[in-house]
Amino acid sequence: MKKGENLIYKESLALFTDLYELTMAYGYWKMGMHDQEAIFYLSFRKWPFKGGFAIAAGLKPLIDYILDFDFTESDISYLSSLKDNANQPLFETAFLKYLSEMELKCDIDAVEEGTLVFPYEPIIRVRGPILQAQILESVILNIINFQTLIATKSARVSLAASGDQVVEFGMRRAQGIDGAISASRASFIGGCESTSHVLAGKLFDIPVRGTMAHSWVMAFDDELKAFMSFAEVMPHNCIFLIDTYDSLEGTRNAIKAVRGMAKKDFSLLGVRLDSGDLTHLSVEVRKILDQEGYTDAKIMASNELDEYLIGDMKNQGSKVTIWGVGTNLVTSKDQSALDGVYKLSGIQEKGGKWVDRIKISEQTAKVTLPGHLQVRRFYKDGKYVADAIYDEREELDPHLTKVLDENDKREISGNIESKDLLIPIFQKGELVYKFPHLKEIQKRAKEELTMLDTRMKRFINPEPYFVGLDKNLYAKRKSLIESMRQK
Amino acid sequence: MKKGENLIYKESLALFTDLYELTMAYGYWKMGMHDQEAIFYLSFRKWPFKGGFAIAAGLKPLIDYILDFDFTESDISYLSSLKDNANQPLFETAFLKYLSEMELKCDIDAVEEGTLVFPYEPIIRVRGPILQAQILESVILNIINFQTLIATKSARVSLAASGDQVVEFGMRRAQGIDGAISASRASFIGGCESTSHVLAGKLFDIPVRGTMAHSWVMAFDDELKAFMSFAEVMPHNCIFLIDTYDSLEGTRNAIKAVRGMAKKDFSLLGVRLDSGDLTHLSVEVRKILDQEGYTDAKIMASNELDEYLIGDMKNQGSKVTIWGVGTNLVTSKDQSALDGVYKLSGIQEKGGKWVDRIKISEQTAKVTLPGHLQVRRFYKDGKYVADAIYDEREELDPHLTKVLDENDKREISGNIESKDLLIPIFQKGELVYKFPHLKEIQKRAKEELTMLDTRMKRFINPEPYFVGLDKNLYAKRKSLIESMRQK
Repeated sequence: MKKGENLIYKESLALFTDLYELTMAYGYWKMGMHDQEAIFYLSFRKWPFKGGFAIAAGLKPLIDYILDFDFTESDISYLSSLKDNANQPLFETAFLKYLSEMELKCDIDAVEEGTLVFPYEPIIRVRGPILQAQILESVILNIINFQTLIATKSARVSLAASGDQVVEFGMRRAQGIDGAISASRASFIGGCESTSHVLAGKLFDIPVRGTMAHSWVMAFDDELKAFMSFAEVMPHNCIFLIDTYDSLEGTRNAIKAVRGMAKKDFSLLGVRLDSGDLTHLSVEVRKILDQEGYTDAKIMASNELDEYLIGDMKNQGSKVTIWGVGTNLVTSKDQSALDGVYKLSGIQEKGGKWVDRIKISEQTAKVTLPGHLQVRRFYKDGKYVADAIYDEREELDPHLTKVLDENDKREISGNIESKDLLIPIFQKGELVYKFPHLKEIQKRAKEELTMLDTRMKRFINPEPYFVGLDKNLYAKRKSLIESMRQK
Repeated sequence: MKKGENLIYKESLALFTDLYELTMAYGYWKMGMHDQEAIFYLSFRKWPFKGGFAIAAGLKPLIDYILDFDFTESDISYLSSLKDNANQPLFETAFLKYLSEMELKCDIDAVEEGTLVFPYEPIIRVRGPILQAQILESVILNIINFQTLIATKSARVSLAASGDQVVEFGMRRAQGIDGAISASRASFIGGCESTSHVLAGKLFDIPVRGTMAHSWVMAFDDELKAFMSFAEVMPHNCIFLIDTYDSLEGTRNAIKAVRGMAKKDFSLLGVRLDSGDLTHLSVEVRKILDQEGYTDAKIMASNELDEYLIGDMKNQGSKVTIWGVGTNLVTSKDQSALDGVYKLSGIQEKGGKWVDRIKISEQTAKVTLPGHLQVRRFYKDGKYVADAIYDEREELDPHLTKVLDENDKREISGNIESKDLLIPIFQKGELVYKFPHLKEIQKRAKEELTMLDTRMKRFINPEPYFVGLDKNLYAKRKSLIESMRQK
């Protein structure tokens, strides 16, 4: 099997999973059910940030994980040390041997990264031996939940910046090392122009940006000397951080530093504000820069920014043109997790017949979808009009019923185009998908957003995009719920 | 140099940093300042969760990172590819050669993991060549900010559970792979008894727990069959998930499954609720279990739990005895980042004389502390009474002024014990600290919390613990602020 392009982890992370995946795997193996085929799907339930869309992300790192999947000797040795409540080995040796020799043989279909996705839609679908399709659950959720969350947040920030450059700055406050690496990747997908994070730049070919911290200024006897030294050393990377002592005085020192330079080809790229009333300061700084003839110099701002603050600052007439967005983006401050779940929707009986499965719940939102799910997206005149979730073993019936709202029905008819969103990634364990470069994914996300109606992109009370079940799936689900409730 | 016990990353993560650390490093090198000694410290500013304490964590992974620190050939090759705004190489080759040959020679002092810490206190202090002490900034912040945040959250959840077992369940919703690994580690420090996360179990010797998901139940024709099969296969690991269809019916099926078992040494460990009204259901489930003679069987609950919900459920008479806490703990939902910063507090002039540095700001909370900072903690009769931040080059003066409140002064006097919190970890780049096992760190955190007054541990309006500057540091800071403002 081809190896993944995993550049940061030492060896397989096969144990990057919840223990119950392995106890269930053991159970299936003991029952002789482990090769029975099953089908699972990942979807999320709540509109992230109470917004109108999400951007799928995380597929490439997930696939790298799967390509490298392998229980190493040290993994097996650890598992063999685990004990149950009677202090007996939790797993039999023969089972661990089975795991160590196992090769993944699943069919995996997925929505491509950078694609718009909505609640209840399958984003990843895994079909294969139940043991295998089950043990991938935890890692699939970990990677897809987080990167989809951050790509979505980044798209929102980029929409708020409406064309201005957004630089992702969050590494130092991200949730762990991979919290930062994954966030930089997903932020780029969602629309950030660059990152401060060097390893992400190296791993994913994202442009990197950076100049100076307050400590540079503080390491010199005064600010002017600090700026002059920086200009001397890096004449073509001069965005001066001006708020160490006083932002307006800092602006004047930046200009003095530039004027003091001997080199002719030198340019003042801009200044950065990192504290205080950013809107007010940006206006005052702009005045000084313009008065002194530096009309091209940029004003960069950072300090707890997010899509709401950026929008608000723009409304107030801020003169900021580059936005440095950190913590609130990479940790997704107002919603720290996407609520994606991975659910069984069908299982093949011993005789080969597939039966559909559903999980009912006292919470309607937690009832799952049965079958071999696919999503069809309909579009017309360059705009998306509706999505239909259906069972791909049957023809889609164009009479749709909205998810969670039985009274909202819609018929797809007339001259309308469509595409299916889940496409093959692995077939029987073999990779059949060619990954685009991250820049292509970023481009796709941008194009996707132009296909979405403006009303669905606003941050407050967006109009919900229509996602329905086709008539067949709706009927099947209803009858399954009824039969489960009768039991 | 000794290698770190980093078990998951392939090679040095020297590029796990913000670009400005490297542009500043380049600047210092170009200016011939790179070996000039400087001193930096990490502290946070806001009380996390508006609570009364934090638990320091992350030191061990940070030290492993530092032990492995090394710019590899591929790192250097990447850095040499970066261009400035005039499309010239951002870094000179000679500088990159310097980086590739550099060995870290810093003195690093730190508060031990599991120790109580409070706003404005230095948690890590780094003294060494300014280039080296500077480039460690981003990674120090990333690791310490996140693990301290999660250890603190976990301690709060554990306080709410008041002695009940708490199992950390969050891997699938954590922020990336290391978001999960670090969160499992820090959650254990804060008081979680175990984790569902197998790799964390392997890496850190944390007990792992897990039984079954809804998909196990759904893979069988009915729930009773699913439970019986599980009991057959894993008789000593039976906590049945009872809410796939109906939680009370599920409880009865769990009992039927147990009674149907042939094996004599079999036991029903408990049942797990994962949806619905957890408090109400726990009471009803308890009745059924008790009526049927299973008074020892545990009731485990999960579903968006946190310290507030656990406290509330206990107040309402919930019968839950094991708490599965996931997303809200590992992503620290109500505060997704600790606001730790890393600031320069002094620099050695060419002649060898140290000068103190301070960053002033329009936001008083952002003004930094100058000097070679240390924290002394005072205690009496088994309770902490106050902390003093002071410059360790002078004797501590026991007249303290509260941080951010000049009117609150206190004198430390009489028969009182004390200890300094920052202890040597590295001296001139050599590791001089012996790491305790994670279980020791967990024990320390628990003991620390018993030393803190109850009023400081409540979640709503806790009494703030007294942290002051000693008289010398207070005076020095005041005069530095005044002289900066006069400039």
